[in-house]
Amino acid sequence: MEKKRVAILGSTGSIGTQALKIINEFSEDFEVKLISANRNDQLLLDQALKFKPKHVIINTISGYNYIKKNLKQNKTKVHCGGKVLCELIEDEDFDIVLVAIVGFAALMPTISAIKSGKKIALANKETLVVGGGIISSLVNDYNGTIIPVDSEHSAIFQCIQGEKINTVENIILTASGGPFRGYSQHDLESVSIEDALKHPNWSMGNKITIDSATLMNKGFELIETRWLFDIPYDKIKVVVHPESIVHSLVEFHDKSVIAQLGQPNMYIPILYALNYPKRVRSSAPKLDLIKTKSLNFESPDKSVFKHLQFAYDAIKSGGSFGCVLNAANEVAIDGFLNKKISFIDMANIIEKSLEKITFVQNPKLEDLLEIDLETRKFAKSIT
Amino acid sequence: MEKKRVAILGSTGSIGTQALKIINEFSEDFEVKLISANRNDQLLLDQALKFKPKHVIINTISGYNYIKKNLKQNKTKVHCGGKVLCELIEDEDFDIVLVAIVGFAALMPTISAIKSGKKIALANKETLVVGGGIISSLVNDYNGTIIPVDSEHSAIFQCIQGEKINTVENIILTASGGPFRGYSQHDLESVSIEDALKHPNWSMGNKITIDSATLMNKGFELIETRWLFDIPYDKIKVVVHPESIVHSLVEFHDKSVIAQLGQPNMYIPILYALNYPKRVRSSAPKLDLIKTKSLNFESPDKSVFKHLQFAYDAIKSGGSFGCVLNAANEVAIDGFLNKKISFIDMANIIEKSLEKITFVQNPKLEDLLEIDLETRKFAKSIT
Repeated sequence: MEKKRVAILGSTGSIGTQALKIINEFSEDFEVKLISANRNDQLLLDQALKFKPKHVIINTISGYNYIKKNLKQNKTKVHCGGKVLCELIEDEDFDIVLVAIVGFAALMPTISAIKSGKKIALANKETLVVGGGIISSLVNDYNGTIIPVDSEHSAIFQCIQGEKINTVENIILTASGGPFRGYSQHDLESVSIEDALKHPNWSMGNKITIDSATLMNKGFELIETRWLFDIPYDKIKVVVHPESIVHSLVEFHDKSVIAQLGQPNMYIPILYALNYPKRVRSSAPKLDLIKTKSLNFESPDKSVFKHLQFAYDAIKSGGSFGCVLNAANEVAIDGFLNKKISFIDMANIIEKSLEKITFVQNPKLEDLLEIDLETRKFAKSIT
Repeated sequence: MEKKRVAILGSTGSIGTQALKIINEFSEDFEVKLISANRNDQLLLDQALKFKPKHVIINTISGYNYIKKNLKQNKTKVHCGGKVLCELIEDEDFDIVLVAIVGFAALMPTISAIKSGKKIALANKETLVVGGGIISSLVNDYNGTIIPVDSEHSAIFQCIQGEKINTVENIILTASGGPFRGYSQHDLESVSIEDALKHPNWSMGNKITIDSATLMNKGFELIETRWLFDIPYDKIKVVVHPESIVHSLVEFHDKSVIAQLGQPNMYIPILYALNYPKRVRSSAPKLDLIKTKSLNFESPDKSVFKHLQFAYDAIKSGGSFGCVLNAANEVAIDGFLNKKISFIDMANIIEKSLEKITFVQNPKLEDLLEIDLETRKFAKSIT
């Protein structure tokens, strides 16, 4: 069997490093052809030395010089910046492009991948949260394939295998509820950064951990779900499931419900996305229902966790709503992590930004870039 | 769209009547071409008058005469006995044959259906419990399709849609645990018929309700699973799940688990089997996880519920083991329902029968018929 040629965008991040670990484990199945990172030059260099990709791309000049110098003896080509990344995605042959870049920066490379007919494993949220409408129509136009890497969307994707999407009645996203599950508005007023960074089930980066505490993460997943599965906003529900064992569920119109379960780690969704449509044997920890004993479900409180309500508003409105939500949220989290504002202030900054920035129903890419900048500027001014 | 031509074997039983109710609801999709019953002539006549099938078959002469007389003005042909039933299954055109006959009597008509290339919706357990090896090789030889109607097997069947069977690592059957969940051997000694007939979640016939109390029902499902999905005995597990919401689960070799959930009723599995591979919109009650609140799982106690251990032995041994198990179990239940023996005596009668009757590794159909008779005779002698 030919090895799958893989590009990993954002290889030094949480998903990127886990993906490389998996590729290392299944080295007979994969060939790493491209890795990219924003600025972690040391780790990117180490990865380049180990996996010997054809291309390495970093965003900083200093990083570029550092890696270039240290890869002199090597055949790997070193590049700098997002523009050349997009060109390489378009020009080179990859069997799968794993988009594990954090933030808005993933949008352009994702578009390059779709336009050049590459299969995409998507681990980035902002691509769909901000540019869902654009991505969705590009996927249609270019007959593209996006395999989700997020555990919830991977779950949904697995649940609808062999099923017709028009028989889906509801998609039920599960949410751990984060560290502040059951908190009142009043309780939230006094939580600290340390409290917010303690996630009960998942080990992730800081930004996404705060997003889990506010339920913005689940909100983003709502928006992603809407675009990934081309499903109307009123068919997507959220249920709080503290154990994070049921990763999501799909209710079909005969009222049969299919769910995907597993231990809460990213190994299975990454492995699944890299190998789709094949399932390969893995040594991931098994689910033991008897040990788990009990799976619990409850309603999320949208009046306390306002970020979730913003997301519902976003999938209802569409247009530029998600772009403003994402930009304001990033600024708000920065403000919170830098101790400028409190936990509950984050929702206020988003709310004010959504009120302030002019809504556009069918934004083009340029509009989104502008709205993103405008929102960040405004949100910073009130942080 | 052409209507699906349906034969319902055992139309007056619990599954048969529910199937006709569904067909009545979806009357534009189905045409009832044949119904059959053992001896409930009045209900069979009523069904014949309502659904106007081409053929009606009953096993008793008196029933035959009664229906014949009352259907005089009607085009429906009335027949008597199992032999003509098999002939009709082979000779007539059906898009699906629902085998909802209770007991060993379903074996021959099922074989007729497979041999004549009919798609089968199988609601009968004994066919596979007794004749699993024979049925399985016939399905292979004739490239047959069996769609399971049991809620657990329907769940498994739904979970593996779009998946490859060789990627299945384990099949996890859920069991409600029945009315005596958590009972000790000592507790079981004094249970009454009335206690045994109170099933916590499912409303079913008497025989199957007792089978649920002894866990023989789950044991039979183990055996059915082994044959339906051609899966080795050591890949099938049972987990007790008192709420009967998760109908079963499939663990794939990447350690991802897919489960099917729903309210505990037979509507969805019957509807699914009748329409497969289509899923149709239904008005079945929706699953509400927030109302359900908690799904619990525990280990079954095979030392107390010996019937379950017999079934594990059966899938390990294969051959005539299931035939003896089934026959001895039927006799034991008769004895219990007729107050000849106690609840725990049922296991003893089965155990002694399994010891007494000579094991055959590759029984032919004639062997099974003989072993069945021999077992019943022996089991009766000790009841």
